[in-house]
Amino acid sequence: MATAAPPLKDELDIVIPTIRNLDFLEMWRPFFEPYHLIIVQDGDPTKTIKDSACRCFGYMVSKKKYIFTIDDDCFVAKDPSGQQINALQQHIKNLLCPSTPLFFNTLYDPFREGADFVRGYPFSLREGVPTAVSHGLWMNIPDYDAPTQLVKPLERNTRYVDAVLTIPKGTLFPMCGMNLAFDRDLIGPAMYFGLMGDGQPIGRYDDMWAGWCIKVICDHLGLGVKTGLPYIWHKIIPFFQSATLSKDSTSVQKCYIELAKQVREKLGKIDPYFVKLADAMETWIQAWDELNPPKAN
Amino acid sequence: MATAAPPLKDELDIVIPTIRNLDFLEMWRPFFEPYHLIIVQDGDPTKTIKDSACRCFGYMVSKKKYIFTIDDDCFVAKDPSGQQINALQQHIKNLLCPSTPLFFNTLYDPFREGADFVRGYPFSLREGVPTAVSHGLWMNIPDYDAPTQLVKPLERNTRYVDAVLTIPKGTLFPMCGMNLAFDRDLIGPAMYFGLMGDGQPIGRYDDMWAGWCIKVICDHLGLGVKTGLPYIWHKIIPFFQSATLSKDSTSVQKCYIELAKQVREKLGKIDPYFVKLADAMETWIQAWDELNPPKAN
Repeated sequence: MATAAPPLKDELDIVIPTIRNLDFLEMWRPFFEPYHLIIVQDGDPTKTIKDSACRCFGYMVSKKKYIFTIDDDCFVAKDPSGQQINALQQHIKNLLCPSTPLFFNTLYDPFREGADFVRGYPFSLREGVPTAVSHGLWMNIPDYDAPTQLVKPLERNTRYVDAVLTIPKGTLFPMCGMNLAFDRDLIGPAMYFGLMGDGQPIGRYDDMWAGWCIKVICDHLGLGVKTGLPYIWHKIIPFFQSATLSKDSTSVQKCYIELAKQVREKLGKIDPYFVKLADAMETWIQAWDELNPPKAN
Repeated sequence: MATAAPPLKDELDIVIPTIRNLDFLEMWRPFFEPYHLIIVQDGDPTKTIKDSACRCFGYMVSKKKYIFTIDDDCFVAKDPSGQQINALQQHIKNLLCPSTPLFFNTLYDPFREGADFVRGYPFSLREGVPTAVSHGLWMNIPDYDAPTQLVKPLERNTRYVDAVLTIPKGTLFPMCGMNLAFDRDLIGPAMYFGLMGDGQPIGRYDDMWAGWCIKVICDHLGLGVKTGLPYIWHKIIPFFQSATLSKDSTSVQKCYIELAKQVREKLGKIDPYFVKLADAMETWIQAWDELNPPKAN
C-alpha cells in the first residue's frame, strides 16, 4: 500500500532540550519517526551547560530549513472528537501558508480549508507575507507566571480554540518555547534564547526574550508569526507522586534534606524558584535542629 | 421562583434596521424580551431613506449606555453542544470586562472563566482598558465580498471558534455591522455608518467605514475592541423558495419582468449587485422581444 511521504521529511529537524522522562519519545514516536531528531542533553552531570537556552545549540548545528522544538513535558493532546493531534503536521501547515500581519481577518486564518478573507479585507493585502514562526498552544497546565500559579494552582486550560491567527504587526506576545516551529532560513539567527537560568539574574524568560526579538525582526522584514493550533498536552511530571527516599533517611530531618535535594535536581530544571525553595528547605532544617537540639537521654 | 434580573436591562437598547421577515423577532423573543427595541424601518415605500446606514438613527435617538444591533437575516446559532447561544448576554460580558489591546495574550481573553494572562505578559498591562466595542461573528453564510462569493457560492462557515480576543492597538479589521454591541457613552458618536448604498458611489462598505473610524479612535483614546464570540446564524432569506408571481403574469416575459422587480426590491437590499442584475434581466427581455417579435397568425 502506498503511503504519502511525510511532509518536509528532508527539510525539518526536531530539537528537544533534555529528555527527563522516557514516556515522552514513546508517545510521539508515530509522529516523529520520519524526522531527524536533535536532542540537546543538559542533564548529563559530566557536562556543564548552565544556560537553559541549550536547545538553541540544536538550532545552530541544524542544516535544515525548518525546526520544530518541543519540551519533554509536552504530550500528545486530543482534539474535541478524541483524535490524537499531530502537532508537527499542523505546524508545517502553518509555516507553509502565508501570514496576514497587516490587517486582522475576523474569521481567523483565511488560508485554512473552508475559510477566506471576509468582506472589507483589502484585496491588496490578501497575498500575505511568508510565515517565519508557528507558535503552538497547550492544554492542561496553563503556563502562568509563578505568582499566578500560586494563586490558581488547580486551574487547567481545557478550552480547545479551533483557530490559527497571525499576530498583527506591531503587537508583541509572550512566546512560549515548549511547542514551537520556525523557518530557520528566514528567522533562525534570531531564535536565541539568551543568557538565562542558573547563574543569571532572571529566569524563565528565555523563550519570552527570543519571542520579543523575533517579533520585532519579523515586523521589520515583512515576515509573519502565527499562534493557535496545534495544541499539545502540557504535563508537569508529578514530582511528589514518584518521589522515593533512600533507606539511609531514617529521621524526619534526613528525609526532608533528601527531598530538598530532589526538589533542586528535578524541579529546579522546570523553574529556578525550586532551587531557592530547596535551599530554604535545608536552611529550615538547620534552624530547626539549632532550636530543637537532640534530647540528652 | 426567583429569576435573576436580565443584565443591563435599563441600560441597553437593541437597534434593528428594517425587519423583512417575521420569523426573526419570534426566534429572538426569549432573549430580547426584557429589553427595549428600536426598529428603524427603511422598507416603508412612503418614506425615502436611501441611506443604508439607517440604523445609526437608532444609535442617535437612544439614551442608553449600551447598544446591541443585529440584522434581520441573523438567527440564533447553536454552540457545539447544541445549546442555543444567547448572543446578547455574551456581548454584555465582553463589554463589561476589560480589553487588552497593548499586548497579545496567547490563551485569548484573560478575563474569561478558567483563563488568565500567561507567563511573560507584562504585569503593568494586566489591568487592561475599558471595552468600547464587541464584534460578534457568524456561522453559515460567511460574509465574503461579492467576487469571493461568486467564486465560492456554496462555502459555509461551520467552525465554532470558542474565543474572544482584543484586536491589538494599531491593527485594523473588517467590522461587520450584523452582530455588534458597543458602549454608546464611550464610542457612540463615532458609530456612524456613513453615506453609502443607493445613490452613493460605493456600497456595502457602511459598517467597514464605521469600523475603521471607531478603531482609530479607540486606539487613540485607550479603549478596547473585541472580536469573536458570540456567534449568530447568518441566513440569506431563500429568495427563490418564497417567490410568487401575480395572476397578471401570463407569459414567460411578464413572469421574468416581475421576477426582476422582486430581485431589485428584495435582494437589492442585501447587495447592490442585484439591482444591476435586475436591470440586466429587464434589458434581456427587451432584447429578446426585439429579436423574437410575436408571430403574426
